[in-house]
Amino acid sequence: MEFAEIRVEDLNPQKFITRRVNEISAAVGGGRAVNALSGGVDSSAVTMLGHRALGDRLRTYFIDSGLMREGEPDHVVALFKKLGVQVELVDAKKMFFGRLKGLTDPEKKREAITHSFYMDVFGPIVKESGATHLLHGTNYTDVEETVAGIKRQHNILAQLGIDTEKTYGYKVLEPLIQLRKTGVRIIARALGLPKEIYTRPPFPGPALSARVIGEVTPGRVETVRMATCVVEEELRSSKAFQYLAILHEDRVTGLRDGKRDFGLQIEVRCWNSTDAVVGTPTRLPWGKLETIAQRIIAEVPGVVSVTYNITAKPPSTIEAV
Amino acid sequence: MEFAEIRVEDLNPQKFITRRVNEISAAVGGGRAVNALSGGVDSSAVTMLGHRALGDRLRTYFIDSGLMREGEPDHVVALFKKLGVQVELVDAKKMFFGRLKGLTDPEKKREAITHSFYMDVFGPIVKESGATHLLHGTNYTDVEETVAGIKRQHNILAQLGIDTEKTYGYKVLEPLIQLRKTGVRIIARALGLPKEIYTRPPFPGPALSARVIGEVTPGRVETVRMATCVVEEELRSSKAFQYLAILHEDRVTGLRDGKRDFGLQIEVRCWNSTDAVVGTPTRLPWGKLETIAQRIIAEVPGVVSVTYNITAKPPSTIEAV
Repeated sequence: MEFAEIRVEDLNPQKFITRRVNEISAAVGGGRAVNALSGGVDSSAVTMLGHRALGDRLRTYFIDSGLMREGEPDHVVALFKKLGVQVELVDAKKMFFGRLKGLTDPEKKREAITHSFYMDVFGPIVKESGATHLLHGTNYTDVEETVAGIKRQHNILAQLGIDTEKTYGYKVLEPLIQLRKTGVRIIARALGLPKEIYTRPPFPGPALSARVIGEVTPGRVETVRMATCVVEEELRSSKAFQYLAILHEDRVTGLRDGKRDFGLQIEVRCWNSTDAVVGTPTRLPWGKLETIAQRIIAEVPGVVSVTYNITAKPPSTIEAV
Repeated sequence: MEFAEIRVEDLNPQKFITRRVNEISAAVGGGRAVNALSGGVDSSAVTMLGHRALGDRLRTYFIDSGLMREGEPDHVVALFKKLGVQVELVDAKKMFFGRLKGLTDPEKKREAITHSFYMDVFGPIVKESGATHLLHGTNYTDVEETVAGIKRQHNILAQLGIDTEKTYGYKVLEPLIQLRKTGVRIIARALGLPKEIYTRPPFPGPALSARVIGEVTPGRVETVRMATCVVEEELRSSKAFQYLAILHEDRVTGLRDGKRDFGLQIEVRCWNSTDAVVGTPTRLPWGKLETIAQRIIAEVPGVVSVTYNITAKPPSTIEAV
């Protein structure tokens, strides 16, 4: 496969799809392939391309790390069932939280999730499945940011020093690697995926753990999950590129039942961006910001303070961890 | 002295001043008094009342804790010199930072500052001065919040279990105790204090240490001091009740020279309020918020992220620590 960027203005969706489907068919031949579906636009598009090329010879897994949003695992599985794609749901909560226990350093947390995902959970699945190929949703921005040393969330096995072919006996296929996010959305739509998927704001690989500063425990993930519900409900109609809630580790002074008390702080971010390379905070209406703060205070136990991020990327990044 | 609130509509500034000056004169008699001046409107008004009543028999000290804003100690001393009041500047930086070393718990930090102020620094000064009375700028809101268990920053010696008369041989006089902030501002103006003082936004007793989450070191205070400079310059004309910068302990991901790096986060708060009992975040123009964020990023080393607080008090409080 090629690595040059295909710009949106040069993208012919049907030709792109036909070409990639043929490439996947040719590469896998009579073998079998696997992929992990998160419900994001990248992995959803890859799932559809793979199933067009391979049918039942592609097996698709949803890994429930315990770090997903409210109701997300069941919802994604049900959504693909409607499209005729069977997705296997793997409960891996214990493994992820086990590896994350006691870790507060952001790099170590990312590493724990990567290891848990590829080694504890997905590695054995791939091995047992007898697959010859893994389909992966790497896009052009991911490649750029990895080259620049900003991100490290794809080509992950290579980064871990693992030669996938030697270790697991399979090759990695990255059919979206020439597209940026906008291009992937066009392809997702052309593949017949529902609007909910092709307009879905990006969600990070490490899921809600990217939005917990400090230790990632089931309780702390639940707090940020509840805040995420509020932020997504309130900002779904904003047309912003991405919006998220972050749980801080810092405690701040608040008032509970009229008494001084230390509580939690939630930070809200809402980005204007086209491809996540650069971004600016969305100038949301003040009434909306105040509603978000009031709802988080009322609905998420322990929170006494809510902030809105006003920094551009760079030097900020989209996510906090 | 009485403890019932005097509302602004019932306040006759000249009568109030005459009455308080006479009360201070009568109470101190032929003795001497001391007070600590921070440059805030409360302690400035008390200083002027005390000097009208006692002249040179009141000695006024500015305690430089190392926690004040950029240039503040020299500026306040110079300002009162113009008004004919000599203020003694006491360099107590080492004592404060010594007591604060290693502390991260907000209550312990407050306690360290209180102890350092009253025991290490001001206690001995009062003792050696032979003063019979201490003048203190307690106002009506302070009393209410102490009764409610929200604050603990005045009547401090009594709170430490110290009978001031027994221990140091002096009594505490609180000439502003019947006024809220707005009333104190009216009195400060009537006392001939400059506009800079009588319109000055509140600044907390523990100074910049109330705006450092986690350990209070000279370096971390310098970071929040630089951010405070930017926030005060940009918001001075906003007419907001209070505006401040807070240094978080949490580190967040940022980009430095195009590479992933973990940096500092500054939180900005800007309050609409009349007396600090309740407050709402000011709906600042977006251009102003973006300028503040850009300037902090550019001018304060190590900062990669700036947020704006969008929570009302309660459940938030004005300050963070």
